[in-house]
Amino acid sequence: MSQQAQMTDEQLEKRKAMMEAQDEAVREGLEVFRNKILVMSGKGGVGKSTVAAYLAVGLAKKGFQVGLMDVDLHGPSIPRLLGIKENISSSPESRKGIPISYLPNMQVMSIESLLGDKDTATIWRGPLKIGVIKQFISDIEWSHSDYLVIDCPPGTGDEPLTVAQVIPDTKAIIVTTPQEISLADVRKSINFCKQVNMRVLGLIENMSGLRCPHCGKTIDLFKTNGGALTAKKAGLPLLGSLPLEPDIVVEGDNGTVKWMEKRGLPYTASFAKIVDTVADLTK
Amino acid sequence: MSQQAQMTDEQLEKRKAMMEAQDEAVREGLEVFRNKILVMSGKGGVGKSTVAAYLAVGLAKKGFQVGLMDVDLHGPSIPRLLGIKENISSSPESRKGIPISYLPNMQVMSIESLLGDKDTATIWRGPLKIGVIKQFISDIEWSHSDYLVIDCPPGTGDEPLTVAQVIPDTKAIIVTTPQEISLADVRKSINFCKQVNMRVLGLIENMSGLRCPHCGKTIDLFKTNGGALTAKKAGLPLLGSLPLEPDIVVEGDNGTVKWMEKRGLPYTASFAKIVDTVADLTK
Repeated sequence: MSQQAQMTDEQLEKRKAMMEAQDEAVREGLEVFRNKILVMSGKGGVGKSTVAAYLAVGLAKKGFQVGLMDVDLHGPSIPRLLGIKENISSSPESRKGIPISYLPNMQVMSIESLLGDKDTATIWRGPLKIGVIKQFISDIEWSHSDYLVIDCPPGTGDEPLTVAQVIPDTKAIIVTTPQEISLADVRKSINFCKQVNMRVLGLIENMSGLRCPHCGKTIDLFKTNGGALTAKKAGLPLLGSLPLEPDIVVEGDNGTVKWMEKRGLPYTASFAKIVDTVADLTK
Repeated sequence: MSQQAQMTDEQLEKRKAMMEAQDEAVREGLEVFRNKILVMSGKGGVGKSTVAAYLAVGLAKKGFQVGLMDVDLHGPSIPRLLGIKENISSSPESRKGIPISYLPNMQVMSIESLLGDKDTATIWRGPLKIGVIKQFISDIEWSHSDYLVIDCPPGTGDEPLTVAQVIPDTKAIIVTTPQEISLADVRKSINFCKQVNMRVLGLIENMSGLRCPHCGKTIDLFKTNGGALTAKKAGLPLLGSLPLEPDIVVEGDNGTVKWMEKRGLPYTASFAKIVDTVADLTK
């Protein structure tokens, strides 16, 4: 064999050893989490990030230790939804990144908190994204946690596939709107979970009806009940239905979660029930 | 040099020749189109596919020859929006695929029309997706056309990057809703276009206000005017603002475009103006 071929072999060995070391670090990093929940959707814009962010906050407010990991590398929404402006710092001892402390018992990690200019486009191809998602676990100092909530970009591409392969015992929550065009994509997500052997905790129907703030009557903008029917057909639990609520849209834009204290709001009551159900299903 | 190394060189040569032949076929395939328009969005669920589908139909109804290519491989929406149920057939002479004829002067290509089971999840990593997008041009028998309208999945990942590299003189239309969380992602899309040297024709603000069907008053669900302000800041034209219209949501779910004939509908009037502007800008 020529010297060049030998060098390539050596380089390959080194590369293999490096990747094995990272995989080991990922395995170790995951051990701190008792439950991993992947919030996914077939279609974008159904409120997946909102559900992931508020589910993490809801579980934390119930007293659980929660980590929230935003693996939407092209359009991260979590920092804005939660009003997070800080950047990730790093620990002088472990040389790992320290996630942002949103509540005393809740940490957040997002690509947005690593970028200087928030309007920068993350133009990354698939293989690079796999590496970044692995680093979000191996190179980040997560505290011991009851839940790791993962916000994934829509669809069935590199990011959810990487989560399924890298974080083996993840359970999925699928978010949808009641429109048929969204439900068609939900069925794809359910099939994706079957193919990669990921347990689905249930479906959440978002944007399910809107009450006119002027006359009080209900407008079925994206229809209603479609999520419930799809869940039933697939033999999956419907974790809850959330109405469209203009106040929640405003709070999302402003990065506040004051609605959580407004017990009279239908959205608040429905969301509290979802958090309780998820806690029960993962006890 | 060992035999193994020689074989690898030969294989590499063959692979290189194959890829060059495909790139040549892509270049030839693109020559039939006078204008290529990429409809993109930073965030999902803002109505990007709806705009792409209706823009293609609108241009066709004005008399142009139009091709509509859906490169959203994980969540293709175009066939449902246009009520397309046929599958792609193939030409016995050229052995190429024949796109679906939606109108006498409009052809449509989508991954959905190649899949047997419409609920199948397309679990593909990045590199495979690049190949598929190339094949959508090189292996498909597009007729001579004035416009190729391309519907891209949201974000700045593999698909828009592939379109930018494979289809060099594409012009972009960016769709957004007026919410701040959507506009943040639009700024990423604008930066993406700058980085890959893609000209932006303009912005379209979708879901801009909703008239309550009961009391007639306007509900600013996702606020209004945010798209106009973002366009102004970026020095880009606002091609138009489209209101949220429950009837259009229903038509989208049913795959009909009867609204195009309802001249009195504010959505119809706004959309017609957008089509005229796009035709003017690409004369």
